[in-house]
Amino acid sequence: MISQDTIVALATPAGAGAIAVIRVSGKDAISICAPLFRSIKGKDLTKQKTHTIHLGHIVDGERVLDEVLVSLFKGSNSYTGEPTVEISCHGSSYIQQEIIQLLLRKGCRMADAGEFTLRAFINGKLDLSQAEAVADLIASDSEASHQIAMQQMRGGFSNEIKKLRDELLNFASLIELELDFAEEDVEFANRTQFQDLISRITKVLKRLIDSFAVGNVIKNGIPVAIVGEPNVGKSTLLNALLNEERAIVSDIAGTTRDTIEDEINIGGIGFRFIDTAGIRDTKDVVESIGIKKTFEKIDQAQVVIYLVDSSELTESPSASDISPKGREIIVEINQIRNKYPRKPLIIVANKVDKLEESQIEVLTSEIENIHLLSAKQNIGVEELQNKLLEFVNTGALRNNETIVTNSRHYDALLKALEEIQKVQYGIDQGISGDLMAIDIRQALYHFGEITGEITSDDLLGNIFANFCIGK
Amino acid sequence: MISQDTIVALATPAGAGAIAVIRVSGKDAISICAPLFRSIKGKDLTKQKTHTIHLGHIVDGERVLDEVLVSLFKGSNSYTGEPTVEISCHGSSYIQQEIIQLLLRKGCRMADAGEFTLRAFINGKLDLSQAEAVADLIASDSEASHQIAMQQMRGGFSNEIKKLRDELLNFASLIELELDFAEEDVEFANRTQFQDLISRITKVLKRLIDSFAVGNVIKNGIPVAIVGEPNVGKSTLLNALLNEERAIVSDIAGTTRDTIEDEINIGGIGFRFIDTAGIRDTKDVVESIGIKKTFEKIDQAQVVIYLVDSSELTESPSASDISPKGREIIVEINQIRNKYPRKPLIIVANKVDKLEESQIEVLTSEIENIHLLSAKQNIGVEELQNKLLEFVNTGALRNNETIVTNSRHYDALLKALEEIQKVQYGIDQGISGDLMAIDIRQALYHFGEITGEITSDDLLGNIFANFCIGK
Repeated sequence: MISQDTIVALATPAGAGAIAVIRVSGKDAISICAPLFRSIKGKDLTKQKTHTIHLGHIVDGERVLDEVLVSLFKGSNSYTGEPTVEISCHGSSYIQQEIIQLLLRKGCRMADAGEFTLRAFINGKLDLSQAEAVADLIASDSEASHQIAMQQMRGGFSNEIKKLRDELLNFASLIELELDFAEEDVEFANRTQFQDLISRITKVLKRLIDSFAVGNVIKNGIPVAIVGEPNVGKSTLLNALLNEERAIVSDIAGTTRDTIEDEINIGGIGFRFIDTAGIRDTKDVVESIGIKKTFEKIDQAQVVIYLVDSSELTESPSASDISPKGREIIVEINQIRNKYPRKPLIIVANKVDKLEESQIEVLTSEIENIHLLSAKQNIGVEELQNKLLEFVNTGALRNNETIVTNSRHYDALLKALEEIQKVQYGIDQGISGDLMAIDIRQALYHFGEITGEITSDDLLGNIFANFCIGK
Repeated sequence: MISQDTIVALATPAGAGAIAVIRVSGKDAISICAPLFRSIKGKDLTKQKTHTIHLGHIVDGERVLDEVLVSLFKGSNSYTGEPTVEISCHGSSYIQQEIIQLLLRKGCRMADAGEFTLRAFINGKLDLSQAEAVADLIASDSEASHQIAMQQMRGGFSNEIKKLRDELLNFASLIELELDFAEEDVEFANRTQFQDLISRITKVLKRLIDSFAVGNVIKNGIPVAIVGEPNVGKSTLLNALLNEERAIVSDIAGTTRDTIEDEINIGGIGFRFIDTAGIRDTKDVVESIGIKKTFEKIDQAQVVIYLVDSSELTESPSASDISPKGREIIVEINQIRNKYPRKPLIIVANKVDKLEESQIEVLTSEIENIHLLSAKQNIGVEELQNKLLEFVNTGALRNNETIVTNSRHYDALLKALEEIQKVQYGIDQGISGDLMAIDIRQALYHFGEITGEITSDDLLGNIFANFCIGK
């Protein structure tokens, strides 16, 4: 896995732009680039200081390829921890390719996906969870996902794990030392302190494991299904929430046959709204496919909005009861509640601008916690956004607590917790030190998996293959 | 036009990549960025040397936006000739936008298209033709267009113009000086040397004007129309020349109804091949539209390839004459020759692999300069490429001569030549110095237009509006 050769890749996005940056890293990076660079001031690249920039031309023999700025990073003072040269050239694909081809001819190798960051990890510039955060950071598209990735990249998460691991390692050594003196019946490891550490570790692991539920949805966006009969104003609601004309709004019932997904940021959290066809029985073949999809989407959603046309729920303004159709809808709502008892469900009565006061009273008394809304007149939209935010536990985010977003970390934390619980059981049962040491070693192993102190080529291969080339 | 404010823009292409570069230029560039940058080593940006790189975080108050590398260019030591900061951040659109928004809040203004290069021009870092070459360089997609743009950017073209302009300016001053001493009848300007200069200028102007024909096609690619009846193998030929499956190849006559354009590099020159429907009369409405397009494409093309199915030109192998259909085709070829007498026409007989030796003899004797080819078996393809290259005057390119590619320069050169010819006429007619001085001033004006010594806001606006943002 660890290679000594010098790698090259385009570090900026492909396509037209003012400039492009070509990154070269490896022990020969500077010696390969120096002869290809003709400094404006006649400088020799190999004799320049680290972290300096030089103007000149990239030349292939007598042929001038481009006027460039070259940035030098010497020794281990670079992102990768190896000598690095960054060539800032003009943003023509032709020029980029010519320069990269030249570097390949002169002894560089094309970098694999994520290979620069892999080298940063191998050279000890980043631990594994920090390296993974680099990919998350590049993919971040909301304030929350960005904040989590930044925190992880700055080591917030791994520092916490590392500290606990070091303490646990210390106790493991003491307990193993006791084994060497087994016949003398000494206790190097203070059992009270050890119990205290195990309790602390259990608490931290549980907190981190719980945070994954938040972290995962923040990273991927929170799926919200908008369900209801055709023509109750789902597309209009979606547009009000999205603040733009994304879904096709039409007065023809059943227009929204395909599910439309769209993501918006509310309070820095990404929500993916899934507009679905209605639930009611229908004989239209296309519609019934839509209804099947609706249930599938509810399965996937974290929150469900059940949207009803409020004018259909009540009789004429003078009547003081729910309409027959309203009764049907209430039955349907209860069906969903029974089918998905633990899924947050918001009943939204749309088009309330069309109702009389008396009708609204009927609604609020008959349907618990009904949310009154007029998507068209923008009544209750902000309140609905706030309600959605309540379903996300943003406390951890606001308090800058560590949030786990990576399922690999989550798995390792679960396994570590399992081992720690075995250790706790061992303490409770007063089992012998040699058996306890095995469980502690297992827990240490899973801690090490997160930060990369314990890795395999397969694991590294999997992690870095998801990076883009040039990173 | 000239503004003193500090501008910001993304300099790398939009989209996903490992890194992105945000460029800030203007007198306050460093003082705006310094408080937003928290150096890892606690360095104060304002106190660092020019052409140095610094690792740290971009912070908005307490919020950390990203870990970045900041490149400093102080005083006039930058592309724009103003203090410049380049922020190399992670390639997430979210992060790019957050950093740019932060800079806008802290006093930067979003840069207009080409504004960095406009400032480089205003600050004397580039002359106008060099600035224009920057855009050409970014757009370059072949060796030839790249070479011309590089040469122009390095001042090859403007240096030549500037030198002539200086010499002419010198004579203009002397001649105008004579006017002050008109009554004394002195001659400060040596008339022999002056005639020599005007001859040299005329020669250079004519050469540059002539080079535009080459420059223009190199910049835009040389249009080659491939014409012929349906089903003679145009798409197959195109594919052979393109070396890939680009056009739809089919045995159904008339498949290629839309003109398909594609560009390939032959010997570093871009050729745009235009595949068209056949010419023959037809009753099919769609076909006849294709035929109209064929003539339009011949009008636009610089070279025409007339492609025939060689097996249709001759009778059975035993016969020793052109087939009746072959006669028709010869008539058609002559029609094209008459309609476009000056346009290079290559008659290509395709599918020669199907012919007997005797048939080939008939063909070559009946049709002058016929090019034998089998697109399918790759016979004669390379020879055809070489023939195409002969139609491009690549001598100037090979000899590294200055080639004009910009129609603005071409216009100015034409006008300058017109004025110089008036001067020459004046010399021949022995007209008075004061009249001659007017023509010289006019010629100087047009020279100045090219290099930007004479500009207007409108002109600059037009030129830089074609640049991308961030350049």
